Amino acid sequence: MQFSVATTPITNSNFKSRAFKVVSDHLATLKANGEKGTSIGTASRADPILPPLTPEDTSMFPSQAVNTYVAYTSPWIDLCSNDPVIANISRQVLNLEVNYASWCGVKSIIITGPGQDASKDGGNQGLAQYSRAIQEVLTIAPSISILIHIPMYREPLVGVQNETLSSLNEQETSKAAGGDIDIFTSWDSWNQIRSVCKYNPRLLVALKVPKVMAEKDLQNRWFCEPLHYLTLGPEVFQKNKAGYPSLTRNHQDMIFAYMRLKNAPWLLLCDVGPDVRHITDGKDEKPPLSEADFPSLEEARRPAFRVSTDSNVYCEYLRWLETQQAPFSVLETPILTNFQDWLQSPLQPLSDNLESATYEVFENDAIKYDQYELAIAEALKEWNELNLPTSKPGVIVMAVAGSGRGPIVTKAIQAAESTGSKVEVWALEKNPNAYVYLLRQNAQKWGGKVNVVKTDMRAWKGPLISESPETGPVYGKIDILISELLGSFGDNELSPECLDGIQHVLAKPHGISIPQSYTAHLSPIATPKLYADIYTRAQTDATAFDTPWVVSLFQLDFVAQKVPGHPRFQEAWEFSHPIPDSTLDAVVARRSGGVVGGTGGSMAGAAGANDHNSRFCHLTFVARTRGVAHGLAGYFESTLYERKSGPSKGKKTEISIHPERIDEKSKDMVSWFPIFFPLKQPLYFPADTELEVSMWRQTDDTKVWYEWLVEAWTWVGPSARVKVASSDICSSRKIACLM
Amino acid sequence: MQFSVATTPITNSNFKSRAFKVVSDHLATLKANGEKGTSIGTASRADPILPPLTPEDTSMFPSQAVNTYVAYTSPWIDLCSNDPVIANISRQVLNLEVNYASWCGVKSIIITGPGQDASKDGGNQGLAQYSRAIQEVLTIAPSISILIHIPMYREPLVGVQNETLSSLNEQETSKAAGGDIDIFTSWDSWNQIRSVCKYNPRLLVALKVPKVMAEKDLQNRWFCEPLHYLTLGPEVFQKNKAGYPSLTRNHQDMIFAYMRLKNAPWLLLCDVGPDVRHITDGKDEKPPLSEADFPSLEEARRPAFRVSTDSNVYCEYLRWLETQQAPFSVLETPILTNFQDWLQSPLQPLSDNLESATYEVFENDAIKYDQYELAIAEALKEWNELNLPTSKPGVIVMAVAGSGRGPIVTKAIQAAESTGSKVEVWALEKNPNAYVYLLRQNAQKWGGKVNVVKTDMRAWKGPLISESPETGPVYGKIDILISELLGSFGDNELSPECLDGIQHVLAKPHGISIPQSYTAHLSPIATPKLYADIYTRAQTDATAFDTPWVVSLFQLDFVAQKVPGHPRFQEAWEFSHPIPDSTLDAVVARRSGGVVGGTGGSMAGAAGANDHNSRFCHLTFVARTRGVAHGLAGYFESTLYERKSGPSKGKKTEISIHPERIDEKSKDMVSWFPIFFPLKQPLYFPADTELEVSMWRQTDDTKVWYEWLVEAWTWVGPSARVKVASSDICSSRKIACLM
Repeated sequence: MQFSVATTPITNSNFKSRAFKVVSDHLATLKANGEKGTSIGTASRADPILPPLTPEDTSMFPSQAVNTYVAYTSPWIDLCSNDPVIANISRQVLNLEVNYASWCGVKSIIITGPGQDASKDGGNQGLAQYSRAIQEVLTIAPSISILIHIPMYREPLVGVQNETLSSLNEQETSKAAGGDIDIFTSWDSWNQIRSVCKYNPRLLVALKVPKVMAEKDLQNRWFCEPLHYLTLGPEVFQKNKAGYPSLTRNHQDMIFAYMRLKNAPWLLLCDVGPDVRHITDGKDEKPPLSEADFPSLEEARRPAFRVSTDSNVYCEYLRWLETQQAPFSVLETPILTNFQDWLQSPLQPLSDNLESATYEVFENDAIKYDQYELAIAEALKEWNELNLPTSKPGVIVMAVAGSGRGPIVTKAIQAAESTGSKVEVWALEKNPNAYVYLLRQNAQKWGGKVNVVKTDMRAWKGPLISESPETGPVYGKIDILISELLGSFGDNELSPECLDGIQHVLAKPHGISIPQSYTAHLSPIATPKLYADIYTRAQTDATAFDTPWVVSLFQLDFVAQKVPGHPRFQEAWEFSHPIPDSTLDAVVARRSGGVVGGTGGSMAGAAGANDHNSRFCHLTFVARTRGVAHGLAGYFESTLYERKSGPSKGKKTEISIHPERIDEKSKDMVSWFPIFFPLKQPLYFPADTELEVSMWRQTDDTKVWYEWLVEAWTWVGPSARVKVASSDICSSRKIACLM
Repeated sequence: MQFSVATTPITNSNFKSRAFKVVSDHLATLKANGEKGTSIGTASRADPILPPLTPEDTSMFPSQAVNTYVAYTSPWIDLCSNDPVIANISRQVLNLEVNYASWCGVKSIIITGPGQDASKDGGNQGLAQYSRAIQEVLTIAPSISILIHIPMYREPLVGVQNETLSSLNEQETSKAAGGDIDIFTSWDSWNQIRSVCKYNPRLLVALKVPKVMAEKDLQNRWFCEPLHYLTLGPEVFQKNKAGYPSLTRNHQDMIFAYMRLKNAPWLLLCDVGPDVRHITDGKDEKPPLSEADFPSLEEARRPAFRVSTDSNVYCEYLRWLETQQAPFSVLETPILTNFQDWLQSPLQPLSDNLESATYEVFENDAIKYDQYELAIAEALKEWNELNLPTSKPGVIVMAVAGSGRGPIVTKAIQAAESTGSKVEVWALEKNPNAYVYLLRQNAQKWGGKVNVVKTDMRAWKGPLISESPETGPVYGKIDILISELLGSFGDNELSPECLDGIQHVLAKPHGISIPQSYTAHLSPIATPKLYADIYTRAQTDATAFDTPWVVSLFQLDFVAQKVPGHPRFQEAWEFSHPIPDSTLDAVVARRSGGVVGGTGGSMAGAAGANDHNSRFCHLTFVARTRGVAHGLAGYFESTLYERKSGPSKGKKTEISIHPERIDEKSKDMVSWFPIFFPLKQPLYFPADTELEVSMWRQTDDTKVWYEWLVEAWTWVGPSARVKVASSDICSSRKIACLM
């Protein structure tokens, strides 16, 4: 599909001349009167008034076409100026232009980002003013997208600076270039601007691609920001052997990476052809008005890059580049891509009954069920090899607790067949609708061999062996208890509590649980988009920031480095099953009030019957560059079965959504997205910071919830670490999972 | 007045023995099983259960007296322990004790603060757990005050440590002492605890006075915290020549300072007599229960220290010390003391009409009106000396704009008499009720010599000189325009806008305004109590954090040092009157729509008619020690009149509420309290930080408001400064002053 968009300046050089004249006249008057024009807070200045727009100042007028334009404001203003007159006139120009473009019907406006030294030490006075001006502009134009045109990093000043209002003030023009390049200053400026504007979703980035591609850390940082355009000037391109423009491998890789975003940025070519030149850096003010007003600029996007019909060598190159992208992986199918960074409320697994369609989605995950089959087969093999006693002579009794529509029952039967094991299978399900389906499956598919029971697993007494008037009902035990109760964070859908509740039917001492154990893992991340999304929800949902969201995290930046001893992903805690008998006895005692008058629980008013399932961890992550954390990404791993004997001793059958290990353990498994624990306030930290995460799994006698706290400690010397920031203790208590 | 309060432990040594046994039995079992007791996140531990309380474990039972007790929890628990078992049992003990004491009717409970190494680098895992436990305790006992007993600073560990639960774990007891003393770690721990508990007003400090008094910075830091007790053990006292206990001069000064607080802390003597010993440091567990349960502890408070009737040498000393306090100053009268840290909503000066009583309060400020009389006299003298032309031949025409009930009119008449000046006096007032009073004053007191006009000063056309059918009314001009429109921040009650509005009646070119100019001043401060107060209000008042509060700031800590080039108090901006004619002309043009279609204002939709009264400043303050800022304190100074000629040229008659200059310029002036610009979130910063304050006086065509932003930059080396924190841009736009 072909596509193109026009960009246009809002005002022209006529307006610029008039604005410059207003300021220079004013400065001349001040000089003549011996007044200082640059001191701040001087008494009642008579700041100059910007003259109103005339038809000679602009070529933009309301029309059908105008709301397809991307307008850009005058690049010669200096909102950051230390000179109050220049800063004031710059704000007037900005307001006037945005106001006028908005009136004409424009839908998005590009504004030149803050200048070179806006975020240097001591120079951030200007940035505060710039940010405040942008905040006001978002108010002036309440339905327009504002795009800040900002370089990926700030290159040292070289050559001639563009003419801006500040050129009129001698003190302003003496600013020196030089010093080391700090490649994060540009991102820092952006971070302050959008923070002041409270992550307004209409505030976006037009990122200027540099001639020399930045290091990966910085590319990843920008990856998570709301990129709307990538702008490419001719200087970004190299000539290939044939003399045609091309991009370096590093540039290509960056573009390929950014194009994988659900909302991929548009590519905006600047100054690359006779009719495609005018974008906001103000370098080219020369062409007469008739030519400068409606340059048509090329855009291209994914899945197909979109390139205009113009036959321009740059466009042709991008069209070729588009064909060089890697094909989609399993996790990049359109359906899964749609889920990118889309917040889902967590399930209430014990109180919600799932729909059939939900079951169906999960059942489609072949990887997961294959791992379950493998784990069951391994368990059966080892049981046979070790010739362990069974709870029913000659038969291994298996139960699938929470069978749903039966996929694991099928796998268990297959595993028994493949290993030649004699088994008895029980399928337990509390959902009355799924129960109907299980009965039909048993009749149609399992040959009636499965014992289907409608029950909450915690209330089940075990397989009924016999019943007589003398003995009453006699119940047996289970040898292998199979469940799929894991959530994105492992224990977050109450697997520990459910399995504790059914453990009394597990045979002793050989009964096993599949899964045998599971671990939760954390990493602090930057996700401006999710933060903005949750911030918006929080206006109407008081618990938005208290919610651990299930979300296919994609547009994120891992703020933690991979450092020996401090990996990027760290284990929070582990659960394993079955739990020791002594623990189970204590639980039963507390639950039944065996501890009279006890207030032993960690939580207000609780008896502590579930305290053994509480957890705490304290993890230290290392951030090399400065940045901002918006929350914690959570993942799980689970050992479904581990061989405990023989030559394969220690061999594990596992599933994992740990980003560094999913490919090794359960590649292409799609059943679980990560979990996201948000922070109420973005946590900013300097370079060389250690992020200390305290995380709790809290529980009283009726609920389970999480609490999380992030603190930042920065190294200020080889041996001194100072605290620089702390989040609140965040808590999901208000929306806790009910047991 | 005599006063005494009993303190009591909640449980006794019997309970302690039982708790210790539970833990040691558990640890022994773990050891026998080869399990690790100290690893975090181990699988399903069977944590020990604390046995319920028995009558043998406590001597506290419900009674009439019990709600007068101050109870204290067991000092031998270790909430900070890295050992999950010890941490868990400690929480159980704490919850059990607080729950029981609450049930018995106790109203306040002292809890031992976090241990020596809780806030050391890397040791803050324990502090997170401690803080979370206190948060829970506030929930368990919803109407009890919780007092954290914490030393002013942590002295190095010396000698034997007390026996705590952690003594049972070998790994825990190997913690080494040593290292440099960082005197702020104790405050740091407190700051984290109360931050986690969201500045809960029921969470207070019991501050342990050290043997060696800390430096002033630290004393001042604690001064602003919610101190409920100062605890003094015998080691704090020295023996004087006669062998009696006494305190050093430094200790005395600290106590005197703290006793000036409206809610002065109580003095709690610990372990100083046979029946006054048991307070929470756990040093003394020896006395039998009969003796230990109800020690009576001495307390003393201001205005009189309160000391019990017991004849104890320590009490006698404190009773003597009480008599040594400096007498109250003018600003410490009971009425003004009542205003300490009491938030007042700012006035809407142009739309609210003041009550007579309000006028009366202000009129009682002799200092202020004396300064006005002096300024008027100086102006009249100089006018005469220079023999300047007057707008009415031979007579200096004066107007008091906003006369209220007329105190300045009286002063103007007195000044004219004392300087032998011939004057005509006009009194303008918009409040119809005050107008009645002015007319009566004129008849009874001013001999009918004053011209009283009921008018908004901005609408006044000037003194009516003549009126005829031919000429219509002819108005004269004013030579000296006197007003008292200043607010706590100078311009915050719209003095600039009002005086602009009446400037058209001022004679040119010699007409003067009294005041001639005024400046606004800022300093970042820590005020935990105000923060807590505003936080509470914010639950029901959405603009609580957007409000610049007028408040008699007292319980505060100035976080900025006095550093050359970066004073503690810095000038934000200045206004002076009259404003240049060119400015006034521009204002008139914009206001009358002379700028057609102009959108020149800095604010959305404004024409910019008041833009010349907008201001911006960027100030840098230096903080040497780490701390927390809750907002900005604002003050004003004003030059009422400055001699422009003669031998006294430059001599100023001033008023000031600048803390460092009020005594020099207008000592004992009480009309204005400072203003406080709050931050929504406390801003924590490390040592060697520069606090950069950006402040705006914003205005559109109808309103005036302030915006403020604080950013923290920390020095991490001799030449590198990193940003560590930033507030939001706070804004009072929603509650702006209407013009």
